[in-house]
Amino acid sequence: MDKMSAHLRNLISGKLWGYCIAALIVINTIVLGIETYPNAMNSYRELLTSIDRTLLCVFILEFVLRFVAYRLDFFKDPWSVFDLCVIGIALIPAQDAFSALRAARALRALRLISVFPKLRKVIEGLVMAIPGICAIAGVMAIIICVFGLIASKLYGPSFPQWFGNLHLSVFTLFQIMTLEGWPDIVRTVMQEKPFAWIFFVTYLLIATFSVLNLFIAVVVDAMQRNHAEDTGDNQKKRCD
Amino acid sequence: MDKMSAHLRNLISGKLWGYCIAALIVINTIVLGIETYPNAMNSYRELLTSIDRTLLCVFILEFVLRFVAYRLDFFKDPWSVFDLCVIGIALIPAQDAFSALRAARALRALRLISVFPKLRKVIEGLVMAIPGICAIAGVMAIIICVFGLIASKLYGPSFPQWFGNLHLSVFTLFQIMTLEGWPDIVRTVMQEKPFAWIFFVTYLLIATFSVLNLFIAVVVDAMQRNHAEDTGDNQKKRCD
Amino acid sequence: MDKMSAHLRNLISGKLWGYCIAALIVINTIVLGIETYPNAMNSYRELLTSIDRTLLCVFILEFVLRFVAYRLDFFKDPWSVFDLCVIGIALIPAQDAFSALRAARALRALRLISVFPKLRKVIEGLVMAIPGICAIAGVMAIIICVFGLIASKLYGPSFPQWFGNLHLSVFTLFQIMTLEGWPDIVRTVMQEKPFAWIFFVTYLLIATFSVLNLFIAVVVDAMQRNHAEDTGDNQKKRCD
Amino acid sequence: MDKMSAHLRNLISGKLWGYCIAALIVINTIVLGIETYPNAMNSYRELLTSIDRTLLCVFILEFVLRFVAYRLDFFKDPWSVFDLCVIGIALIPAQDAFSALRAARALRALRLISVFPKLRKVIEGLVMAIPGICAIAGVMAIIICVFGLIASKLYGPSFPQWFGNLHLSVFTLFQIMTLEGWPDIVRTVMQEKPFAWIFFVTYLLIATFSVLNLFIAVVVDAMQRNHAEDTGDNQKKRCD
Repeated sequence: MDKMSAHLRNLISGKLWGYCIAALIVINTIVLGIETYPNAMNSYRELLTSIDRTLLCVFILEFVLRFVAYRLDFFKDPWSVFDLCVIGIALIPAQDAFSALRAARALRALRLISVFPKLRKVIEGLVMAIPGICAIAGVMAIIICVFGLIASKLYGPSFPQWFGNLHLSVFTLFQIMTLEGWPDIVRTVMQEKPFAWIFFVTYLLIATFSVLNLFIAVVVDAMQRNHAEDTGDNQKKRCD
Repeated sequence: MDKMSAHLRNLISGKLWGYCIAALIVINTIVLGIETYPNAMNSYRELLTSIDRTLLCVFILEFVLRFVAYRLDFFKDPWSVFDLCVIGIALIPAQDAFSALRAARALRALRLISVFPKLRKVIEGLVMAIPGICAIAGVMAIIICVFGLIASKLYGPSFPQWFGNLHLSVFTLFQIMTLEGWPDIVRTVMQEKPFAWIFFVTYLLIATFSVLNLFIAVVVDAMQRNHAEDTGDNQKKRCD
Repeated sequence: MDKMSAHLRNLISGKLWGYCIAALIVINTIVLGIETYPNAMNSYRELLTSIDRTLLCVFILEFVLRFVAYRLDFFKDPWSVFDLCVIGIALIPAQDAFSALRAARALRALRLISVFPKLRKVIEGLVMAIPGICAIAGVMAIIICVFGLIASKLYGPSFPQWFGNLHLSVFTLFQIMTLEGWPDIVRTVMQEKPFAWIFFVTYLLIATFSVLNLFIAVVVDAMQRNHAEDTGDNQKKRCD
Repeated sequence: MDKMSAHLRNLISGKLWGYCIAALIVINTIVLGIETYPNAMNSYRELLTSIDRTLLCVFILEFVLRFVAYRLDFFKDPWSVFDLCVIGIALIPAQDAFSALRAARALRALRLISVFPKLRKVIEGLVMAIPGICAIAGVMAIIICVFGLIASKLYGPSFPQWFGNLHLSVFTLFQIMTLEGWPDIVRTVMQEKPFAWIFFVTYLLIATFSVLNLFIAVVVDAMQRNHAEDTGDNQKKRCD
């Protein structure tokens, strides 16, 4: 039994297996892509659905094999858990209320990332950058919230479509933070409240300055990690 | 008496106290948030107002305790002064003329930042970055002002909504600096003054180049501070 | 024969030759530029066409000379191959179906880059930065693709102009990634699907965070290359 | 005579003199600012004009003093030449044809920069960053030019307002490079030429990647200059 699982592990962790799975995911993604074209969908509905089902079975089979090979170690690798979740979504019965879940089948294409180590590393880099920006993100959330509360009070009654309640205000302020269409909003508000520019320009400066600092935090973090690796390499060399 | 203030200091600077205050601020913020929804406001106006008042009393009481504990040292900590200002705003009688001050109650949520050391550090980082960019900000203000004066003269008579007087011009040029909607303005102006693109493209290049340098100043500053810390750590290690 | 090719090489690799070619390319570009003005085109069509043809002959002659001088070494220099392709496009008979190829004559102006070593270096720098971002670009492609599939399913039926099929969705999501006009799209979608903001804000945060990391990858890469050069110089100095 | 010029130099290079000049420039700028408000202009036209004239005389007098003090050394300091040009513009008779020159009087406010050493340093930093980006700017100019020629050929006949001739195309492509309103243009063009997205997305990727590299060149340059200063300081310390 143990020998079999060792064999299986060899097979599964091999390159060939990875490429096969990658190819199947690409095919599945293409099928899902074709399904978005109404004409193609109408002509080949049954073919596409059956390919999708077959591939789902293959993927489930792969999980069974991986589980047999690795047992509970399977759950120790976060990428395995990620793969499991992505496939698992397709198994939830997607009825009326959960029709959005049918769309979630597209998440299966994300498994392409888990197949290639280089792409995995990118995602791991992105995830590792998150703790460094949590504090700034928290401050930004508080700032947006405070400005949202004030905006709701001051401009809510006159411009309910933008500042009618807290969540509308927060959305509008998030939009202004991306600098997208802010002059239209501010110029419109200024026609009724001439001093609104003080509020919005203050917010704009604080928000963009915060974004800039969030950005710097990520850059400095990336450089330090990089520098640490370099220094580690150099020290090794010197020790040799 | 002294012993009591020492006890109080222990209590106030403890973690538990901080979390309690944070919880109350969050509750207060949620109450203010609910107040922005007209339906909820109409149904529970009295409840919400009474919660808000009670919390205000609690916060004032906390200040009294902190003042008793720290006496005049209270004013030496900038964050205490910040908290005091934020709460103090709510005590100003907000009548017709100052109805905007009622909205300022939302600033109380900013106290969340002063409760958590990590968030404090973010704000301290933002504030420390300001001196390094004062000079560039000054140059940018002069540049916008000069271009604003010129734009008022050249395009003011034809486009009073954008360049009618100095403050309108400065607002429009600030908008162009954020690159938001600049083609609409420039194309409209060019229909009457075909060579306006020389003015605006010059301004755009100078403005974005200045923003880029402001940005670099902040990045370089952040890296140097970071590097200084690293070098300090390294020198310590070498000395050991 | 060998002596002649050596002579030719001297002549062709000389500065004077380079400047002459550069001047001819500039003239050719100006001619192509004048051709875009309908009035000028109508008055001087024949003159412009004949100049264009003459210059094409000169450029072909230059290639013959370079080929005679360098023989097969000609194909070893990527910039020579680049020049050849750029000129070669003009020789393809541009009939109805390939009328777009006539426009490709403008690519000849790109030869200016290959004439000046400083500009060549810029392009070489750009090209050298590409491998470092392949992995992130791959991840971003997968993310856009997945979100495109989901958007097609969820919003395709209601908003066919934006999410009607996969390639429309991908284009719209690429537009949202550049932050251009995203509030218009999201606000419109939200009128029908009030929870669409969850999808779009998630996408926006992931997309901009990926762009930021792509950006950092390029910066860190550039700094490392720079640093490597510096260290190389320093080590040389120390060894001396 | 020499003693007098030495005295004058002391006076002129003193802090007090600088602050006086700065105050006068600020007053002059405020006057020019007030002139942009039609109401104020109508009521106080004569007062404002006379202040402006008086200040101009004072500035000219200052130049005479500086010239007496420094003789031909005056022209060795680029900031003096800058000041002279800025004031000189006001002396050109601004008749009908040159009415734009009257607007150029606002450039006088730029002298504020030359008065304060910190602001001067910012401008010197900006100017020093220019040589490092000349090559990339050149490549970008060639790229925009080539794409402009192609766009004029391909889309000029259908969309003369955007691509009617070379300079319109270049302006439109510059607009697209700032990402401002690009989806509107591309979606409109795609209605007639469905494959236009290939052209525009290619251009967008190349243009933003070039801007990114221009940006990196400035950052790396700034850091190196900074690092060189640091290293210089460190080496001094070690030598001590």
